[in-house]
Amino acid sequence: MTHKRMAKLIDGRIVAEKVYTDLRADIAELKTRGVTPGLAVVLIGDDPASRAYVRSKDKMCRELGLHSVKLELPASTTQSELLKRVGELNRDSTIHGILVQSPPPGHIDEAAIVRALDPQKDVDGFHPENVAKLVLEDASGFVPCTPLGVQRLLLESGVEINGAHVAVLGRSMIVGKPLALLLMQKNKNGNATVTVVHSRSRDLPQITGSADIVVAAIGRAEFLKADHIREGAVVIDVGINRVEDAASPRGYRLAGDVAFDEVSKKATAITPVPGGVGPMTIAMLMANTVKAARQSAVHT
Amino acid sequence: MTHKRMAKLIDGRIVAEKVYTDLRADIAELKTRGVTPGLAVVLIGDDPASRAYVRSKDKMCRELGLHSVKLELPASTTQSELLKRVGELNRDSTIHGILVQSPPPGHIDEAAIVRALDPQKDVDGFHPENVAKLVLEDASGFVPCTPLGVQRLLLESGVEINGAHVAVLGRSMIVGKPLALLLMQKNKNGNATVTVVHSRSRDLPQITGSADIVVAAIGRAEFLKADHIREGAVVIDVGINRVEDAASPRGYRLAGDVAFDEVSKKATAITPVPGGVGPMTIAMLMANTVKAARQSAVHT
Repeated sequence: MTHKRMAKLIDGRIVAEKVYTDLRADIAELKTRGVTPGLAVVLIGDDPASRAYVRSKDKMCRELGLHSVKLELPASTTQSELLKRVGELNRDSTIHGILVQSPPPGHIDEAAIVRALDPQKDVDGFHPENVAKLVLEDASGFVPCTPLGVQRLLLESGVEINGAHVAVLGRSMIVGKPLALLLMQKNKNGNATVTVVHSRSRDLPQITGSADIVVAAIGRAEFLKADHIREGAVVIDVGINRVEDAASPRGYRLAGDVAFDEVSKKATAITPVPGGVGPMTIAMLMANTVKAARQSAVHT
Repeated sequence: MTHKRMAKLIDGRIVAEKVYTDLRADIAELKTRGVTPGLAVVLIGDDPASRAYVRSKDKMCRELGLHSVKLELPASTTQSELLKRVGELNRDSTIHGILVQSPPPGHIDEAAIVRALDPQKDVDGFHPENVAKLVLEDASGFVPCTPLGVQRLLLESGVEINGAHVAVLGRSMIVGKPLALLLMQKNKNGNATVTVVHSRSRDLPQITGSADIVVAAIGRAEFLKADHIREGAVVIDVGINRVEDAASPRGYRLAGDVAFDEVSKKATAITPVPGGVGPMTIAMLMANTVKAARQSAVHT
């Protein structure tokens, strides 16, 4: 029986604000020790969406009182020039976190750039050393911001991860896999029973329908329907998709991977798009930068 | 309804023989190019079980015509002495694979030893670089031998992994996690929907009971019962546990993680213990050594 009530809305902006409040205290404490956490964001080319992301990261750094470096390079930047810049940032002691905005132009070997980062400054968590630390449950590593944000969102919303069955839709290197690895870790913020479901999965509704928490990160607009979840499940929507919409002045609207209208009537709690996971991703980037600064302060 | 028939026995010794037949051809081909794959196994101390493992690895190398080095060090070997030996093996061009027999004596920092291995010679697949390659689906990496053996056993037995729901019991770094990562990879030998179940999981019977393939790697004798699987499931038993048995001359018998007698009446195929996964683990060590030699021959 489906009740015609509305799920609790998990507001990522409010949770992100709580994260920032905690971070301000950490940053103030670091500053008393002479350390101002610094983040360098490298943008190659002038993709409008990437520029907007970089701008909002820079803005958030300033709001928090972090040292922020925005490195804007032309689309013609060569691989070796980019590697040289990364090397400079690796050696710059005022910079604790480095992020190369994705996607770079096609002639850039992104994996090689990630490998060139100092793993201790890899606040995106994509360097192989940090990937391995996530598997090996070494808490000194950096976890990619979106999965980390999903975990924090659940915890701050009072959703019990420990012992829950979590279905993760999608097996990307950026969200699905790291999230699965994070939530199955042997600690109180993990200990979930995790199923990774994907485009090739059979019996998808049966599997997601048995989960306490469903995280949709499959990149298909409104893919997850009410039939796919069980009554009272918690639903986290990582997707941001453009859907054609003639009624919109832009000709499209943004939609998540979840059919919000119907799923919100069956779930017990759900994130909106936008305003759910999105704000958490940038909050976790700030948190990773502060963590990097704290760890470097211990090391030196 | 449970039928009183017996599941097909998946005989790891027969599948391992097939692997060896394939490997012999690969080795012969490498030898025509002047490359004899070489494996070094390092044993510290004189634990009887470890000695037996090392002996069987050495014996298999000789049977296949591989170059085999057995380095037996006293239990008093220091960390720095061991690191020095590892460094020598890293530089030895006749050695393509290095394995440090686990567990080393308590004063040895095993993780540091693993990190000291040349990742290209890490045929155990435990070096962080190889762990990351497994997540990132880079086929040049080495996958730990037991998970690799489980995958091969399934494939050679005609069990379809692609699209299947696989429940992996256990989330160890040696078996559970790498197996989950391997079977969820985006390729025809993967593409499974994988659930990692563990000691903290609620509703375990419900979850394993919905899986097409159940792999038990939880380290508890006869933990998985007939009630935990669905009629016709495929069951792979990774466990080797000692169970007290007064009737046995040794005072114990070996038991897997699966209650074989009852599960074999409900499963469609099942591995025995011993003679199931065990022979595959050593076969995959040989396969990884041949792969290491092949990759080094390409590089030089």
